[in-house]
Amino acid sequence: MKLAQNINLAVDGIIFGYEDQSLFVLLIKQKYGSQKGKWALPGGFVLDNEKLIDAVKREVREETGVKVQYLEQLYTFGDNIDRDPRFRVVSVAYFGTVNPKHMILNPTTDALEAKWYAIDTIPKLAFDHSDIIKVALERLRSKLNYQPIGFNLLDSKFPFSDLEQLYMTILDQKIDRRNFRKKVLSLGFVEETDEFRKSGSGRPGKLFRFNSKKYKELEKKGINLDIKFA
Amino acid sequence: MKLAQNINLAVDGIIFGYEDQSLFVLLIKQKYGSQKGKWALPGGFVLDNEKLIDAVKREVREETGVKVQYLEQLYTFGDNIDRDPRFRVVSVAYFGTVNPKHMILNPTTDALEAKWYAIDTIPKLAFDHSDIIKVALERLRSKLNYQPIGFNLLDSKFPFSDLEQLYMTILDQKIDRRNFRKKVLSLGFVEETDEFRKSGSGRPGKLFRFNSKKYKELEKKGINLDIKFA
Repeated sequence: MKLAQNINLAVDGIIFGYEDQSLFVLLIKQKYGSQKGKWALPGGFVLDNEKLIDAVKREVREETGVKVQYLEQLYTFGDNIDRDPRFRVVSVAYFGTVNPKHMILNPTTDALEAKWYAIDTIPKLAFDHSDIIKVALERLRSKLNYQPIGFNLLDSKFPFSDLEQLYMTILDQKIDRRNFRKKVLSLGFVEETDEFRKSGSGRPGKLFRFNSKKYKELEKKGINLDIKFA
Repeated sequence: MKLAQNINLAVDGIIFGYEDQSLFVLLIKQKYGSQKGKWALPGGFVLDNEKLIDAVKREVREETGVKVQYLEQLYTFGDNIDRDPRFRVVSVAYFGTVNPKHMILNPTTDALEAKWYAIDTIPKLAFDHSDIIKVALERLRSKLNYQPIGFNLLDSKFPFSDLEQLYMTILDQKIDRRNFRKKVLSLGFVEETDEFRKSGSGRPGKLFRFNSKKYKELEKKGINLDIKFA
């Protein structure tokens, strides 16, 4: 049943990826509608019997081909009444992080094209999607300090410098590496392996991996990395 | 314009109050509907041309008489499709804190009665409102560590022990008072005044007040009180 209420409910997904020291967002080129041809976040209307979380996963999958395991609710955008020029749409935005490596983009349904855009090369987007990305990026940055992040963004084994670089890229600032390493290792969500990897001309570096159990524990409980900048 | 989508959009408000070392939530007794007579959070449907934030402020004011200055979006509840037995309702929940002193409750429209319930005396609520309060309480607790809280909950001038007690009440745990005092005063969002207040049989204690400028600065930037428990 529907009340006499003229509000449409949508979901949008902000999918962050990380590769080669750059942070990316997954965007699609719109196939239909008043904003046809413009780039936008993947998203769309919620079906009547569909959970919000299922709706956003479906829309991301349909429009980009990417299956995201974990998405977190970011914010519901409904204060700008005219955010969609067609009619009123309130959108529940979700964000998540994935490792784009080996991902084949496969746009269908409402998307002409799907593409990873480096955060500093994003074109002018449809609707208020540029603002939504800003909010998501702020949330991601503030989460860095009080939740371990990176599990989905790095390879399963990585040199410690990759984690440092990931944090510096997201924060867009140099960090005190010594302090960071000490803090991360003392919390126990990253642990040494016995393997080494040679990178560049230096001597081979030890590889690290996430301790998933500890990671999930800390993710729930919250931490404070208290990151110092360099 | 409305798509062929049978989803109704509502807002709910979780208003926390604090008095006499207890944390309260503002509830209303439902006048109409399938859950008539049950206690619930103040809230209702969003009007077509109304911002979400205006909708929740209006509903709280209409159903309880309480005017809330600042509310923060908590979460949008839309994964439990049958959360309302009548039809599908997705609700955007907002929470805020007020000092209930001198507040006159004045229920109108959809509310028969409005009342502050101490957090440990809340009856079984309509819909999924008990779950919503749980989420709000978790958020309030986790915010204590990384945002200064209390500005709206305490008198404008207060003995330092009132702030300690507020934190212990919300956290439902004893804290290391010495560590807490040192940390709070070093951050500068609470400052000493020249006034004293006599309370109980002890010697009069110094009164403190919030430094609003510093408070707002820290609220935006985030802090880490790193509260130690006793």
